[in-house]
Amino acid sequence: MSRSVTILGAGLVGSLLAVMLRKRGFEVAIYERRSDMRLQTMSAGRSINLAVSHRAWHALSIAGLKELFEDIAIPMYGRTLHQIDGSVVFQQYGKNREAIYSVSRGELNKKLMTAAEEAGAKIYFEHKCVEADIPNNRFTFEQANGQSTSVQADLVFGADGAFSALRTGYTKVDRVNAVQEYIEHGYKELTIPAAATGAFQLEKEALHIWPRRNFMMIALPNTDASFTCTLFFPFHGTPSFDSVKTNEEVLQFFNEQFPDAVPIMPTLLEDFINNPTASLVTTRISPWVYKNKSALIGDAAHAIVPFYGQGMNAGFEDCSVLMQCMDQCGDDWEAVLAQYQKLRKPNGDAVLQLALYNFIEMRDKVADPEFLERKKIEKDLGLRYPTQFNSIYEMVSFSHIPYSTAWQCIEKQDALLQRIMQSGNYFDLIGTDSFKTQVDTWMSDYHASVATLEFGNGAH
Amino acid sequence: MSRSVTILGAGLVGSLLAVMLRKRGFEVAIYERRSDMRLQTMSAGRSINLAVSHRAWHALSIAGLKELFEDIAIPMYGRTLHQIDGSVVFQQYGKNREAIYSVSRGELNKKLMTAAEEAGAKIYFEHKCVEADIPNNRFTFEQANGQSTSVQADLVFGADGAFSALRTGYTKVDRVNAVQEYIEHGYKELTIPAAATGAFQLEKEALHIWPRRNFMMIALPNTDASFTCTLFFPFHGTPSFDSVKTNEEVLQFFNEQFPDAVPIMPTLLEDFINNPTASLVTTRISPWVYKNKSALIGDAAHAIVPFYGQGMNAGFEDCSVLMQCMDQCGDDWEAVLAQYQKLRKPNGDAVLQLALYNFIEMRDKVADPEFLERKKIEKDLGLRYPTQFNSIYEMVSFSHIPYSTAWQCIEKQDALLQRIMQSGNYFDLIGTDSFKTQVDTWMSDYHASVATLEFGNGAH
Repeated sequence: MSRSVTILGAGLVGSLLAVMLRKRGFEVAIYERRSDMRLQTMSAGRSINLAVSHRAWHALSIAGLKELFEDIAIPMYGRTLHQIDGSVVFQQYGKNREAIYSVSRGELNKKLMTAAEEAGAKIYFEHKCVEADIPNNRFTFEQANGQSTSVQADLVFGADGAFSALRTGYTKVDRVNAVQEYIEHGYKELTIPAAATGAFQLEKEALHIWPRRNFMMIALPNTDASFTCTLFFPFHGTPSFDSVKTNEEVLQFFNEQFPDAVPIMPTLLEDFINNPTASLVTTRISPWVYKNKSALIGDAAHAIVPFYGQGMNAGFEDCSVLMQCMDQCGDDWEAVLAQYQKLRKPNGDAVLQLALYNFIEMRDKVADPEFLERKKIEKDLGLRYPTQFNSIYEMVSFSHIPYSTAWQCIEKQDALLQRIMQSGNYFDLIGTDSFKTQVDTWMSDYHASVATLEFGNGAH
Repeated sequence: MSRSVTILGAGLVGSLLAVMLRKRGFEVAIYERRSDMRLQTMSAGRSINLAVSHRAWHALSIAGLKELFEDIAIPMYGRTLHQIDGSVVFQQYGKNREAIYSVSRGELNKKLMTAAEEAGAKIYFEHKCVEADIPNNRFTFEQANGQSTSVQADLVFGADGAFSALRTGYTKVDRVNAVQEYIEHGYKELTIPAAATGAFQLEKEALHIWPRRNFMMIALPNTDASFTCTLFFPFHGTPSFDSVKTNEEVLQFFNEQFPDAVPIMPTLLEDFINNPTASLVTTRISPWVYKNKSALIGDAAHAIVPFYGQGMNAGFEDCSVLMQCMDQCGDDWEAVLAQYQKLRKPNGDAVLQLALYNFIEMRDKVADPEFLERKKIEKDLGLRYPTQFNSIYEMVSFSHIPYSTAWQCIEKQDALLQRIMQSGNYFDLIGTDSFKTQVDTWMSDYHASVATLEFGNGAH
């Protein structure tokens, strides 16, 4: 029994899901709150660049769309860390020169919308969902002209983001648990333009970080040779968005904290004053699905902070796992949705934790020489013990290993690396037989301690 | 500057607050979702009796309403524990024969509504708040006839319960954190009628508990000599509402678990089948107030589980503390609301924890002889060290000590009682000088460890 599918939200996940479902022959209608972004100039200041990694590429490839994005994606092979003294350290992400890819969120979204339409999905823009009647699968939309439309849906996916109308509907259903929690930091977008020559003003193929313990700035490359910078900064305290406001305060703060960036940020003051200060929310909800009628997907199910670059990757993986569930359970939609929830909910919870965790790593730990040493050791361990060891970052960004497995491995890897690093200088010692034998044993211990976890198809 | 006050909800807290505010000369309009319960016969099965304790009496007395309720309140001096073998143990609540008072929620609410109207408040029934525009303090109500009314409010209190419309509005404001969480247990109301002679069929002046580890039944006396029973029972697992459904299953379960109650529950099967199975939610939100415009109060701010009998008591105390804040801050409503939040939010969080904690005590620990012994020792310590020791139950139920203080004392009291009970039989030993001296020292340690906490006006 083929069903008619209603998707709330024509964002990244909603548009991709539409393509996947059209390929399987479903009728698909998407209702989108905003107007068609393809007809407009992008509003600046709210467009954190996206880092496409393994999971998103895989989902795009299932949808037959991978090629569409290869042109607009810039590989980033590692982090370039900008220390406060102006010195720079490069830290490679993968042991095999894997990359994550910088893509403009707007461009990606526009191409996905067009792909959805070309696949035969109908997108209704300027349809804001103002009421979601979950038991009856009835949705009321308000249009820009104030007119109201009601839709009796058959099967619904809520891909409508952190403030999802479907999620809000779910919170009114008996025994639904829900959390929304803002972090203490907000963000502001800034820019490093291309040089007058048209060249990139920083190393192109890297994600740039200015780690400053309780705050940080990052910069991701764009195809026009500019960089989109984002300052992640507390709302309150010193320093914070509260304490850094006037032109003088902004200049003084940037000169002190980001001295190497200021000369290549000619519009710093305008950007800082004009661009919005945005907040960062995480959400959890349980359950994610309602009978055989509807499901949450992407940010609507698990809004997370952007620090692992996994928000879109996780949302796209939701879509590819949903397709697997359809393969497994066929037309029994109660079973499809139950299986989808069973497979994805623990990973939604885990990626939320991982993203919060990586904020601390990015803004604080990477400023620490001991941590940089650890990262080098991890790479070496991965090469020496390819079937036994894979760093958390690699699991998350370069594999399909479930997020929940990566999250559960953190503590075990911490213990392993602590043992190793307490023994002295790893790279001096690893050449000796006795130390190598010792590390072999510790590695076997580690491997045994994670052996019961689910590693899926990913390299262990 | 006197302000016009809009209250959402004519429940217990909304009605009491209306009386208090009318006494101070404010114009008060209450909007209530339901129709006027005074014109209707009570719907059975959703009326957990209330236990009025110290905090609620105090607030009622500030509002000049205490006398109104003394007639319909039945004192309960302790818990009567019904063991599975039919034996019964009585455990007194206070060291000075303090009581909590059983009151019908419906009767209390009706009298409070009438008091609010008599004080000059206007109650608009059948006005369901369907939209709360927090920044603009604009509220849209839908009436029973489908008509919509919009109200531009001056100062608003959301006393509209766990599913508060004001709270829902708050969750849409930037950087508001919110949690709703259901527990694994639901409840079902049952009844023990008066005997044919009109007599109570169980000891009248007690709260009856059938503690069964993972579930329990309780019974509270009514003025008509009946008892309202409530079964708190998991939704899933064995046994649970899932596993106990048919007449045969219900009878078998009750005969096994509550053999002494079955003979006095003639309508058990009808009640079990006909009365709803209701769920139990807790909510937290931060902040509780919006500028000088609105505030959450009672369950709307802190919906809790009913196991400490503190839901209404906490809500009423919110009202009396709000009055204190008005005394302190006068017409500066931004200051009044900020002070209210500062004083009450930590206590809302604490009473939520206390209520969850007391569920474990009621259903599980009270079945344990060692725990009963501990309760006796606590009473004795309270009498011997009146300025140094007060049991958690007494702090919560018979004092104005902040809930947050009670919550923070739990661990310290556990440590103290563990020391004492590990030394042997307290009541044998306490007569000896050496043990008494030892307990003096331990008590001084305990007292020092809680000395920095806020004890307010309550006896320490």
